[in-house]
Amino acid sequence: MKTLRFDAARVWRLGADIDTDVLAPGAYMKHSMDVLAQHCLESVRPEFAAQVRAGDVLVAGPNFGIGSSREQAAGALVHLGLRAVIAPSFSGLFFRNAFNLGLLLLTCESAFLLHEGESVRFDGQQLIRANREVLPCAPIPDFLQDMVHAGGLLNLLKQQFQQSPPL
Amino acid sequence: MKTLRFDAARVWRLGADIDTDVLAPGAYMKHSMDVLAQHCLESVRPEFAAQVRAGDVLVAGPNFGIGSSREQAAGALVHLGLRAVIAPSFSGLFFRNAFNLGLLLLTCESAFLLHEGESVRFDGQQLIRANREVLPCAPIPDFLQDMVHAGGLLNLLKQQFQQSPPL
Repeated sequence: MKTLRFDAARVWRLGADIDTDVLAPGAYMKHSMDVLAQHCLESVRPEFAAQVRAGDVLVAGPNFGIGSSREQAAGALVHLGLRAVIAPSFSGLFFRNAFNLGLLLLTCESAFLLHEGESVRFDGQQLIRANREVLPCAPIPDFLQDMVHAGGLLNLLKQQFQQSPPL
Repeated sequence: MKTLRFDAARVWRLGADIDTDVLAPGAYMKHSMDVLAQHCLESVRPEFAAQVRAGDVLVAGPNFGIGSSREQAAGALVHLGLRAVIAPSFSGLFFRNAFNLGLLLLTCESAFLLHEGESVRFDGQQLIRANREVLPCAPIPDFLQDMVHAGGLLNLLKQQFQQSPPL
């Protein structure tokens, strides 16, 4: 199995308790994902959607993704090309939705050490800063790693059914 | 769809940061679930496994289920017949594993108000104490409710495949 390494990801730094309405604002929920994603995080970082680049990472405080069950909260981040979200804790429901959509979440107690705009890499187990400081992350079980690699649960199931159709 | 109501559930009160090693102690992980479950929570509540009754609920502080990815942490609670776990926040991975095994988790900011030994009911949306105090809970999306009703994800998939086999 491949590992979930990434290199030189640019950090966007957020606070605690980022909720699903901040990620996918209710006022735009009836629009397409193209439109909705343009309003992702605008209440805390108005410049985010316009300036984020594929491969960037979000770094946030505890309880990332609390709020409603709307899957679009994770979907908007996937749509914008975020590589991962790094936080000390996540809403359980957001954690489930994010991996289902192939979005990597790294549970990292010392996420607060990371600064806005710095570059960080992930070796599959821990985050490494440019100054070589190492931040341990909670291990990610294989089945969730597989979901990220496949681009989400539905894609993973399609792959598996093609290899061995269910009886 | 049925709702996830329950009546007159007896409360077991725990603190914050109950981890997977407390739920499913490493020393017994190679034993059967029958044996493992007898050691569930013994480091914080030695009498728990012997005295818990089917239909009881756990009430805990934040970060319930942190630690390793071991599914047995939720499995032991299912094995002992727990009706639900009520806490202000859960480990994302535990949240995923628990619903996959059909264990109901209620995210409740005011869980700390509940006392050891009291009786609580759940009307599908909120918890209600004997004194009629109401504690709101985060809504549970339909697909997770379906998992609880079916007794876990695998049972739910079996039911769905029987109704409409995949192409």
